[in-house]
Amino acid sequence: MKPKVGFMGLGIMGSAMAANILKAGYPLTVYNRTAGKAEPLAQLGAQVAASPKSLAAAAEVIITMVTGPEALYELLWGPEGAAEAFGPDQVFINMSSVSPSFTLELGKQLAPTAIRFIDAPVSGTRKPAAEGTLVILAGGRRAKITDLEPLFLSMGKKVIYCGRLGQGSMMKMFINLLLGVMMAGFAEALNFGRQGGLDFEAMLDTVLSGAMNCPMFQVKAQLLKEKNYPPAFPLKHLAKDAKFVLDTAYETGAPVPLGQMLLHLYRLGVGQGWGDEDIAAVARVMEHLSGK
Amino acid sequence: MKPKVGFMGLGIMGSAMAANILKAGYPLTVYNRTAGKAEPLAQLGAQVAASPKSLAAAAEVIITMVTGPEALYELLWGPEGAAEAFGPDQVFINMSSVSPSFTLELGKQLAPTAIRFIDAPVSGTRKPAAEGTLVILAGGRRAKITDLEPLFLSMGKKVIYCGRLGQGSMMKMFINLLLGVMMAGFAEALNFGRQGGLDFEAMLDTVLSGAMNCPMFQVKAQLLKEKNYPPAFPLKHLAKDAKFVLDTAYETGAPVPLGQMLLHLYRLGVGQGWGDEDIAAVARVMEHLSGK
Amino acid sequence: MKPKVGFMGLGIMGSAMAANILKAGYPLTVYNRTAGKAEPLAQLGAQVAASPKSLAAAAEVIITMVTGPEALYELLWGPEGAAEAFGPDQVFINMSSVSPSFTLELGKQLAPTAIRFIDAPVSGTRKPAAEGTLVILAGGRRAKITDLEPLFLSMGKKVIYCGRLGQGSMMKMFINLLLGVMMAGFAEALNFGRQGGLDFEAMLDTVLSGAMNCPMFQVKAQLLKEKNYPPAFPLKHLAKDAKFVLDTAYETGAPVPLGQMLLHLYRLGVGQGWGDEDIAAVARVMEHLSGK
Amino acid sequence: MKPKVGFMGLGIMGSAMAANILKAGYPLTVYNRTAGKAEPLAQLGAQVAASPKSLAAAAEVIITMVTGPEALYELLWGPEGAAEAFGPDQVFINMSSVSPSFTLELGKQLAPTAIRFIDAPVSGTRKPAAEGTLVILAGGRRAKITDLEPLFLSMGKKVIYCGRLGQGSMMKMFINLLLGVMMAGFAEALNFGRQGGLDFEAMLDTVLSGAMNCPMFQVKAQLLKEKNYPPAFPLKHLAKDAKFVLDTAYETGAPVPLGQMLLHLYRLGVGQGWGDEDIAAVARVMEHLSGK
Repeated sequence: MKPKVGFMGLGIMGSAMAANILKAGYPLTVYNRTAGKAEPLAQLGAQVAASPKSLAAAAEVIITMVTGPEALYELLWGPEGAAEAFGPDQVFINMSSVSPSFTLELGKQLAPTAIRFIDAPVSGTRKPAAEGTLVILAGGRRAKITDLEPLFLSMGKKVIYCGRLGQGSMMKMFINLLLGVMMAGFAEALNFGRQGGLDFEAMLDTVLSGAMNCPMFQVKAQLLKEKNYPPAFPLKHLAKDAKFVLDTAYETGAPVPLGQMLLHLYRLGVGQGWGDEDIAAVARVMEHLSGK
Repeated sequence: MKPKVGFMGLGIMGSAMAANILKAGYPLTVYNRTAGKAEPLAQLGAQVAASPKSLAAAAEVIITMVTGPEALYELLWGPEGAAEAFGPDQVFINMSSVSPSFTLELGKQLAPTAIRFIDAPVSGTRKPAAEGTLVILAGGRRAKITDLEPLFLSMGKKVIYCGRLGQGSMMKMFINLLLGVMMAGFAEALNFGRQGGLDFEAMLDTVLSGAMNCPMFQVKAQLLKEKNYPPAFPLKHLAKDAKFVLDTAYETGAPVPLGQMLLHLYRLGVGQGWGDEDIAAVARVMEHLSGK
Repeated sequence: MKPKVGFMGLGIMGSAMAANILKAGYPLTVYNRTAGKAEPLAQLGAQVAASPKSLAAAAEVIITMVTGPEALYELLWGPEGAAEAFGPDQVFINMSSVSPSFTLELGKQLAPTAIRFIDAPVSGTRKPAAEGTLVILAGGRRAKITDLEPLFLSMGKKVIYCGRLGQGSMMKMFINLLLGVMMAGFAEALNFGRQGGLDFEAMLDTVLSGAMNCPMFQVKAQLLKEKNYPPAFPLKHLAKDAKFVLDTAYETGAPVPLGQMLLHLYRLGVGQGWGDEDIAAVARVMEHLSGK
Repeated sequence: MKPKVGFMGLGIMGSAMAANILKAGYPLTVYNRTAGKAEPLAQLGAQVAASPKSLAAAAEVIITMVTGPEALYELLWGPEGAAEAFGPDQVFINMSSVSPSFTLELGKQLAPTAIRFIDAPVSGTRKPAAEGTLVILAGGRRAKITDLEPLFLSMGKKVIYCGRLGQGSMMKMFINLLLGVMMAGFAEALNFGRQGGLDFEAMLDTVLSGAMNCPMFQVKAQLLKEKNYPPAFPLKHLAKDAKFVLDTAYETGAPVPLGQMLLHLYRLGVGQGWGDEDIAAVARVMEHLSGK
């Protein structure tokens, strides 16, 4: 028997993930602060809840996919908040990107409701979300994560078990640190080459013919070439993640010299008003830092 | 008719490249400062020259693959230097990694000999060199590079035309900047994750399941896992390239914030005595920078 | 009439400041978690309170000078906490270094007690504390700060009004950012010169003969020369402040490229076990980063 | 008997230094590429040479104070170059800022002339140059430097013996590394404070009341306050020095994390077109990096 699912947070990522849950045959209720965003899902057969609380009351598994702590708190403990309806027979899965320490904090705050809590952020952006090929980074009770694997696989191609609660968020920080470094490095190197007189296509050919060829560079090259950055992964979100990485590194003692530089670069992009563009707009930061 | 080739510099890369030239049926003469290194090639049928000058006298195309400017000067203008025998009917191809400005300088110094000069560093390390799947980054007269394509393709899978003389070196700086950033970022992220309690295999699985999956990470992961760094690309060479990148960026005005951090990190590795290990030993630098 | 003062936190700084309050003729009660530290002050005539609460009950002005938020919370809301005895006729002055956002948070938490709250961290370390020549960086209601000026001047030579509550902490972040940059820059430059063959005394002479001559370099030079770092300002405290600076900069959007490097360097010092040495031990970090 | 002095390079610094030599009673011949700049000195009694060579022929001590290697080469080995008239009974003092390795290179190139060569850059900018209170950083044969002390003291208040030839330049790199860090740190901290709501005067008061009070901050504060940067020390020259520092550090293995950041920041300033403003214009760089 497929459990009844409640899904809150219908942005770019959430809408696509919810649609895939629905397609896989799960009974689905959705909620979004801006109600209009629920429309397309309603047409596909989803119930639309009037409040987070009524969504939670109607679901066995409650999923959130929002931009950060503030939005989460609003859904959980705001007016008609979901947490009011949480109980021991339900599972709460936060798939939003947050810091490991925030996840642990949230765990403590949810403890009185006795709900089971799993943190399961994802690796992948708009396209894998639409195609159901995300990688799910799950932390929490292992048996429960195994139980939920079919649900996760409606949204993604793979579930990676990351450890106890909070380690899903930790894995997300890990992968976004690498992502941020690669994106900034790609932009920096291409700008360096361009200012040195190299042809864009020849540089791209060199990268894609060698050991550094990866799907990300293939996709982002197009944006960099056209200097147009429609957001698959908004730059401001990566700036936020870079801050989480630094905060986490401060606690664990890990050195993050490149991570620090990322914070500097992506924050600069946000400051210049490019936060809603794709992370590839870090190329604009490189131009801003250049004399040309 | 295949031209007679002279090849100087029989290190890890050069030996493999020379062997592939031989296998492709080119008449080959080799020279190496340490004569013993020519032995295996002699057994495969190469002539061994007694000096750079006699090699140059016997060849139509002279190739060098050495560690940098000093070694090049020694071969060209040292005792019995090759340049003494250079003339207008020959081609000189420097495949060593050097800076664009050094290549231009070298071009001026070679001008009196009237030899045609092409700079053609390669993308790829030990394994692609052995398998003949390097990517050749060629700068200089286009027609001449086209003429030599069969020779280049004996060593590599592809020739990328980069522009006028010096732009091959520029492309090499470009690709090694990206390489250095990715290697350091991979090491930093893995160390960050490890200090945050993540399992190495789970991190690797996450990277290789997503948009950042690339041959380089697949190969280097093994070294990082075993904490053993036999050199495919010695760390000290990347430190040198990082310096070339900075020097070039200083001239062109390109910002290289991550490149600067690379110089700091790889130089630290050299300072700690890890210069002869693989670039993946930048992971040791991360541990050195950590409190653990 | 001099108000009755309660002083909690008798470390290096606090003990000296409390002694100066006493010398200026204020009735003083002190409290420290480790009771032994109150002894010397008792001998000078201070009352020793059995708990933070009884100290607060006995005082009109309550001052704290501790290492950070945790210690503050313990004193205010731990067992027999001071806040239980706070009321509208009293003033609470936190002179500890904390972030501006923490100060504002604390303000909210203290609001129910109706006590007047001033944040007044200090510029200056061990010696100015002993000599009563600290600079007091005060934020909060201006009239109240003016009223308390005689008390502040028992500890310091000057009170700088920084703005509303939290701006004292902001000024402290500002000055410690500059302090951290200067200390690290001094250590980096001296190490750079030393590795370039310069004589320590000649370098020092050059600095102290020019426009960068300042009391701090005069004092710290001695430690750097002897490579011995008894703490006037422990390195771990500056590492903490560097993190506060970054957190604050993240909120305000201010770029702090050098501040980020500070966090990296001082954290590295803490990781190496040098956190309890003076900030001048950042010179050890420079050696650690060097190949020599 | 005062030796006959020849002085080449009559920019901001050179003109002031030459005037002080003249005031001290030395027979002086001057030369400048742009002849008009020699006028004021001619009116004070200096001879004006028609070429570097004729200046060298007329002097026992030849001094150069120019912007860098190119200008030096022009004076020494350009048309009617000074080196043609150099001989063993003369002394050549280069007071321009150049790298230690360039100084050694120059030493080799001058060796055939048998002239004695001293490198003696200065600490101090426009005002100390005018007032004759520079600090002279001299490298070379000690006895010769002692002999010349009266001449040096006509331009400065102190001569610091730095070691063998090249060590004067090394000391200059050392002091300018510290200078660059302090200037950038001052600008960064003031911008950080401003974006955090602090008053400029209060911040300045805090700095000047504490252990970091130094003449440099007193002078530069005025420029930062008025956001107007007439050049006492042009920003582009410090950018150049930062590159020399990095090149030198690369050779000696010294870590220069803050120095690298300087290169990034000051180069950015040059790229934005602020190279001819004072180094205090690094404050503009901070604003450029900020979101505000």
